[in-house]
Amino acid sequence: MEKVKASVIGGSGYTGGELLRLLLFHPGVELRQVTSESMAGKFLYKVHPNLRKATQLKFSLVNELEKCDLLFLCMPHGESMKRIDKYKVIADRIIDLSADFRLKDKTDYEFWYGHPHVNPEICSEFVYGIPELHREEMKKASFISSAGCNATVSILAMYPFYKDNIIKNDNTVIEVKVGTSEGGNKFSAASHHPERSGSMRSYMPVQHRHSAEIIQELSFERKINIHFSATSVDMVRGVLATIHLFPQEQISEKDIWKLYRKYYNDEPFIRIVKEKEGIFRYPEPKILIGSNYCDIGFTVDEKTNRIVLIASIDNLMKGAAGQAVQAFNLMSGFDETLGLEFPGFHPI
Amino acid sequence: MEKVKASVIGGSGYTGGELLRLLLFHPGVELRQVTSESMAGKFLYKVHPNLRKATQLKFSLVNELEKCDLLFLCMPHGESMKRIDKYKVIADRIIDLSADFRLKDKTDYEFWYGHPHVNPEICSEFVYGIPELHREEMKKASFISSAGCNATVSILAMYPFYKDNIIKNDNTVIEVKVGTSEGGNKFSAASHHPERSGSMRSYMPVQHRHSAEIIQELSFERKINIHFSATSVDMVRGVLATIHLFPQEQISEKDIWKLYRKYYNDEPFIRIVKEKEGIFRYPEPKILIGSNYCDIGFTVDEKTNRIVLIASIDNLMKGAAGQAVQAFNLMSGFDETLGLEFPGFHPI
Amino acid sequence: MEKVKASVIGGSGYTGGELLRLLLFHPGVELRQVTSESMAGKFLYKVHPNLRKATQLKFSLVNELEKCDLLFLCMPHGESMKRIDKYKVIADRIIDLSADFRLKDKTDYEFWYGHPHVNPEICSEFVYGIPELHREEMKKASFISSAGCNATVSILAMYPFYKDNIIKNDNTVIEVKVGTSEGGNKFSAASHHPERSGSMRSYMPVQHRHSAEIIQELSFERKINIHFSATSVDMVRGVLATIHLFPQEQISEKDIWKLYRKYYNDEPFIRIVKEKEGIFRYPEPKILIGSNYCDIGFTVDEKTNRIVLIASIDNLMKGAAGQAVQAFNLMSGFDETLGLEFPGFHPI
Amino acid sequence: MEKVKASVIGGSGYTGGELLRLLLFHPGVELRQVTSESMAGKFLYKVHPNLRKATQLKFSLVNELEKCDLLFLCMPHGESMKRIDKYKVIADRIIDLSADFRLKDKTDYEFWYGHPHVNPEICSEFVYGIPELHREEMKKASFISSAGCNATVSILAMYPFYKDNIIKNDNTVIEVKVGTSEGGNKFSAASHHPERSGSMRSYMPVQHRHSAEIIQELSFERKINIHFSATSVDMVRGVLATIHLFPQEQISEKDIWKLYRKYYNDEPFIRIVKEKEGIFRYPEPKILIGSNYCDIGFTVDEKTNRIVLIASIDNLMKGAAGQAVQAFNLMSGFDETLGLEFPGFHPI
Repeated sequence: MEKVKASVIGGSGYTGGELLRLLLFHPGVELRQVTSESMAGKFLYKVHPNLRKATQLKFSLVNELEKCDLLFLCMPHGESMKRIDKYKVIADRIIDLSADFRLKDKTDYEFWYGHPHVNPEICSEFVYGIPELHREEMKKASFISSAGCNATVSILAMYPFYKDNIIKNDNTVIEVKVGTSEGGNKFSAASHHPERSGSMRSYMPVQHRHSAEIIQELSFERKINIHFSATSVDMVRGVLATIHLFPQEQISEKDIWKLYRKYYNDEPFIRIVKEKEGIFRYPEPKILIGSNYCDIGFTVDEKTNRIVLIASIDNLMKGAAGQAVQAFNLMSGFDETLGLEFPGFHPI
Repeated sequence: MEKVKASVIGGSGYTGGELLRLLLFHPGVELRQVTSESMAGKFLYKVHPNLRKATQLKFSLVNELEKCDLLFLCMPHGESMKRIDKYKVIADRIIDLSADFRLKDKTDYEFWYGHPHVNPEICSEFVYGIPELHREEMKKASFISSAGCNATVSILAMYPFYKDNIIKNDNTVIEVKVGTSEGGNKFSAASHHPERSGSMRSYMPVQHRHSAEIIQELSFERKINIHFSATSVDMVRGVLATIHLFPQEQISEKDIWKLYRKYYNDEPFIRIVKEKEGIFRYPEPKILIGSNYCDIGFTVDEKTNRIVLIASIDNLMKGAAGQAVQAFNLMSGFDETLGLEFPGFHPI
Repeated sequence: MEKVKASVIGGSGYTGGELLRLLLFHPGVELRQVTSESMAGKFLYKVHPNLRKATQLKFSLVNELEKCDLLFLCMPHGESMKRIDKYKVIADRIIDLSADFRLKDKTDYEFWYGHPHVNPEICSEFVYGIPELHREEMKKASFISSAGCNATVSILAMYPFYKDNIIKNDNTVIEVKVGTSEGGNKFSAASHHPERSGSMRSYMPVQHRHSAEIIQELSFERKINIHFSATSVDMVRGVLATIHLFPQEQISEKDIWKLYRKYYNDEPFIRIVKEKEGIFRYPEPKILIGSNYCDIGFTVDEKTNRIVLIASIDNLMKGAAGQAVQAFNLMSGFDETLGLEFPGFHPI
Repeated sequence: MEKVKASVIGGSGYTGGELLRLLLFHPGVELRQVTSESMAGKFLYKVHPNLRKATQLKFSLVNELEKCDLLFLCMPHGESMKRIDKYKVIADRIIDLSADFRLKDKTDYEFWYGHPHVNPEICSEFVYGIPELHREEMKKASFISSAGCNATVSILAMYPFYKDNIIKNDNTVIEVKVGTSEGGNKFSAASHHPERSGSMRSYMPVQHRHSAEIIQELSFERKINIHFSATSVDMVRGVLATIHLFPQEQISEKDIWKLYRKYYNDEPFIRIVKEKEGIFRYPEPKILIGSNYCDIGFTVDEKTNRIVLIASIDNLMKGAAGQAVQAFNLMSGFDETLGLEFPGFHPI
């Protein structure tokens, strides 16, 4: 296997760190450089203590970057769009993990992000980063824009229902419970342990930006709408989405089993979890820590014909770095699961 | 103040224990007897370690019960209805903390509980236990049936909207996140710490029995329906309800401020929590541990005209023992807040 | 009961907040002013969300302070010593909750704090703040210096052993596990939730300053030494001290029962916790949240004649604000337990 | 690489499950059978939900076992010793993860376990399972007895000090803080989430059986003694040992650096963690979840010449299944780190 020479821009954050962990153990990658303006010259493990003994690599400055095969961008939102032209000179292939190139429609971007996109034309060159929806495009892509974590879990759970036009109204309610690593490594009074421990914080009951991605990816015959809320809980990694769907026609659990089999039977990273006994009957984020799986469960309230979907991912894996590596594998002609075999822990 | 002589039937569970803590420090109560068939003869503090040094009382057998002014029943669901006639002989006034007498309609009971009620006529003698809705009835009542915890927080948050007929459809979605004390003190493989710690468990995505209470209490002009789901999280005490309401007409946050002021301005145990800055901008259960408050916050998604309510209580206090004492105060002619002044902790 | 007019300097921190909660509900206190330079003009509940609806008091500037009967000082360490002369003009009685006046010997202070004391003479005017050791002095005192949290739990557990000269060597090892509220409300990268959650951090394996207080208070016949280490765990409130004592002569558990009875039988805030069955056989901090108790358990390894003491307090209560109120009660002629009756929760 | 055909007896517990996870992804192993009397016929993932999609293997009965190259025994303590002769017929090589064959001296076994060993002669055939101490023996061994988790972390931290005879007294105090997975998957009232969450439980302040292993492995010139206590905390995986050593002669941190380098410089699974800045300055168990590392840190209190060691492992990995696989690699002629490369997570 010829190794892809890859570098990472912005490797000191949580998403960057998780990506480094994956790339260092990926048999198809030669990790060349990792940039961090604030940590340049220091060992990676000074920021990511789990990498002690795993690598002796040090952080570089971005202007020390050498040409390579592929660049991963892990900058804060709003940074990649400003410098994308420079990065294209460094590598022919780019995977961006920020939100900058996810939305195809610049008016959508402006509405949800509150300011104009500085480089709207380039967005159409990026494939939206969920392989289960865009696998064939990714195989031929030069640029991929990784999907948002809450968007990924919501889209994967609902995709078969919207794709098959089973949901024809805009009554869908999505309630995600998220861990604190979603907020990144920037500390504040609100993230101080005594304030945040044991907390259950409605941090974005309306207007969450990932709504835009969900709407974009699930609008097939018409532009849909959805109702999204996010609550941050006392958990570091993980997202659990509870989704309420209201189909026009009566639907049974058997129908839903069929629907998921139709779309996801051969998907390596999707598991349908619906058990009648045992402890883990529906998906739970703690079982997924470190894995690239998206677990999906469901039930139907027959009296009211409400479908409830319960879906979960590790926000740093399938919601960020893991999914980026999955896309990277497709882009590079590798087996889609390469370097992503870790199954998660029990107990944890 | 003349003290009410009160006894507690079933004092070894979590609700019973919390009630004992309140009654022992309540200036209007003389706690006489506490029954537990399995712990009879042992000190209360052997089960409730927080009561060590607070009392030297021991558990009694139920057949050792002497007459008293008022009985609190803290038995598992299904027990009170079988023995209520015996208990009426012991005390003229009864407050039941189980689910047995909450539903007025016996067909509702049968639908939600899966078996017929053994004593359906008696239900009409019980006042449903939320003082904010039934204060005047309670002052004259002999029998009160304490409300379910998830029902209490949901009803209190939505009451003004349904009472004023602002919500005319059945699209309401209620998502509660609950602590593990809701499940009581019966241990199992699923409640074993390594399995349950860090967990996010969809334990009742549909068909939660508290739905029946919400429907009963909020059906004014018509019999409403609601969509309720419950997720159990890694927290011992507390409920956070995120409620999605879809009014027909455009509503503003100012309108909602007015609505809550109209109904709750003088309520001693309801606080509207909606801050623009600081750490705690919406209600959070950890701030409420041990208090009898129901905190309610809200926001409006103007684009989609969705109202999101965020409401929280301590399930063992306003959701059980605290609310029972509040009802007891009204029934006994005491100040409604007597013995319930504890404000909660920060930090915790 | 005539109320004591009390003000609090430095009311925006965790210790200050806990003290405010106690004073607001204390029947012998009229809380006059609370200062915070950064929050002046804002409601107390903006910082301490649990006090919403409990008070409409606002923070003042320190130079707005009026004369009062008693001042509580809740400033960061090093501040009280600089301004103590000004505060003496405002009130005749002062209780300081910082570390400034705890050590009687100025060379000790310099050794442990790394800089000279700016006002060493005044230290002798302050009574060291553990009522169980200095009750009679407190009744006549004008100035009390509250004890450190880790020092309090360690001293109370070991006092009978050192007082009766049972421990004649310097082999004692004290290992405390502490919650994050001990560090105060100043946030940092290390207190950021994703870094601090689930953590077990050896933050002070040697040279903890509370060692000086333990040595001071337990040196009777000779100047003793002890070996102290502190580990910060994923808990907000609470300290658990595990103490290893090596008596010269063989000692039995019965002897230790006798010893504790001799010293603590009538102490309202000390409980000996040593059960042969049940869940809570030794002290645990979570049972003590919000209470002023110090729970002490013990066992003996007969083979090696090692005594292990297990002692626990709530660091913000018996370790800070609660103990300060206990001292205040003694100083003011009130019942020692006034306003401190809260017994703690179960479950929590 | 020729694969070793391995089976696992007792695969439904936590140690067994962790071992299965490792073996399923180990390039040198063909996992043949996994027994569980209670779960026979069911998929492994019904018990270990993380293995869903990783294997379609089902549990077998022990009497269905076929011959294989190597057996891992993951039975509860006391079971292996009864049936070891039968197991020897099934495989020539055995790795036992219970405590049955750890102690060489049968009187030690009887003292610490409270009953006689049923097969004491066989113990001498087993190599004690810490590779860092017994690497060469393991390469030639047929039988290995995996070490206790608390013993492993304590022994590895202290080995250089005792081996070089730096510690000549018996004053050593070892304080371990352990996660709840150490107690296995047997649930009880004490492990019920509302009781155990947030807990800090002195479950074995004296007489912990792992003491015997520490004494056995660190007695070189003389039979030593140590003082061991264990506190169970609100954490699922992980052990943190805080160890207090009292050398006769003055020792500096530089000396300790040298000592560890001398013994551990080439050890693949030992890392010395001692940083002057950053968040993780000493070892912390959460960083080690899933990894096979033993992290060791240290400091010296120069005033009292006390050494404090801070050492940490994942009890299910380096403390059980991981270390067993490390031993298996040595026994099988594989690279010692094969299948154990996972570095741990950050953040988590």
